[in-house]
Amino acid sequence: MSDNRPFSPIRRRGLMLVLSSPSGAGKTTIARELLATDDKLDMSVSATTRPPRPGEVKGRDYHFVDIATFERMVAAGEMLEHAKVFDNYYGTPAKPVREALASGKDVLFDIDWQGTQQLGQSARGDLVSIFILPPAVEELERRLKSRAQDSDEVVRKRMAKAGDEMSHWPEYDYIVVNHHLDSSVASVKAILAAERLKRERQVGLPDFVNGLRSKT
Amino acid sequence: MSDNRPFSPIRRRGLMLVLSSPSGAGKTTIARELLATDDKLDMSVSATTRPPRPGEVKGRDYHFVDIATFERMVAAGEMLEHAKVFDNYYGTPAKPVREALASGKDVLFDIDWQGTQQLGQSARGDLVSIFILPPAVEELERRLKSRAQDSDEVVRKRMAKAGDEMSHWPEYDYIVVNHHLDSSVASVKAILAAERLKRERQVGLPDFVNGLRSKT
Repeated sequence: MSDNRPFSPIRRRGLMLVLSSPSGAGKTTIARELLATDDKLDMSVSATTRPPRPGEVKGRDYHFVDIATFERMVAAGEMLEHAKVFDNYYGTPAKPVREALASGKDVLFDIDWQGTQQLGQSARGDLVSIFILPPAVEELERRLKSRAQDSDEVVRKRMAKAGDEMSHWPEYDYIVVNHHLDSSVASVKAILAAERLKRERQVGLPDFVNGLRSKT
Repeated sequence: MSDNRPFSPIRRRGLMLVLSSPSGAGKTTIARELLATDDKLDMSVSATTRPPRPGEVKGRDYHFVDIATFERMVAAGEMLEHAKVFDNYYGTPAKPVREALASGKDVLFDIDWQGTQQLGQSARGDLVSIFILPPAVEELERRLKSRAQDSDEVVRKRMAKAGDEMSHWPEYDYIVVNHHLDSSVASVKAILAAERLKRERQVGLPDFVNGLRSKT
């Protein structure tokens, strides 16, 4: 740990960091950069009922489960959030997240506003949510066009969907406008560092301060 | 503005950043470092009824006012917080703070837990409070001893007072343990950067998002 980075010696509870954005706003690149530079932060691994695709690794990309197992987990309250997309279920198993938080590790979620709303119902105090906005619509369009060789019609549909997704910004704690990738990464890092320093997350503080005060 | 620092192009409301700590924990050094490197942050200037000391500059170190003026301001609700120390009044005039916040500037307060409680009554949503703790009592004692050539008796009294002040940490939003000055400064900077990115402070967001959505 270098001396010029935020730091606390106090035992703390982990947090759930949610990044949401309309597609094309840069969220995935920011998430990748965060994960590469922060060893206290892990990506949440979703469970899904769809079959693995070539190259996907079980337990790293997804937990692959059958429909009966998935439905049992939902019924038993073992999913923090879940959704059905076409014929497949996707969801976040609660147990690994609860274990990470208790051990002081943070968990990163790349989910949409619906998943964020569901997470918030079971985990409000642990949740830190960030909405990434594009700096301009032209930039969003440029990114959506460059990402895939899609038809104009597909790009138009994606733009309309992005506009709809953007309407959910008021449901988030923090808003980052992705002007420059480096400064957006710095913004998200600052948010993560600050949230780690919140009083209520530093669960070792009562003992620490009692120790200090006993000697004054 | 360099590209690797947190940044938002959105018009925002300023915030009130409170730093409190037992004396000797390093708060004043941290505050000085912050002010030197952040041109959106200004120190709050208190009003006082005590006479200026040699070298003190009116309006920079204090606003010097007479007792009648001070009492009239308190009665008219023009002080965000105030206290009487021996025969002198000290307080924070509301007007310059309100003007700074409205113009998107942040104001730094170096005040104790009593002042912080008073500020919180009139300005809860604008207030961000940080409590600085020493890493160990021995370090606190060392700093208190090195600061002045005081008798053991005076140092003992200061240590007891520090212990009492430390009991107020649960009233603060963030807790920073001042292990290393550089990392504590980085911690406070991260808190300030994050709080600036809070949704509700970025008052230009509704217009900005409406502008984006109108083109999708």
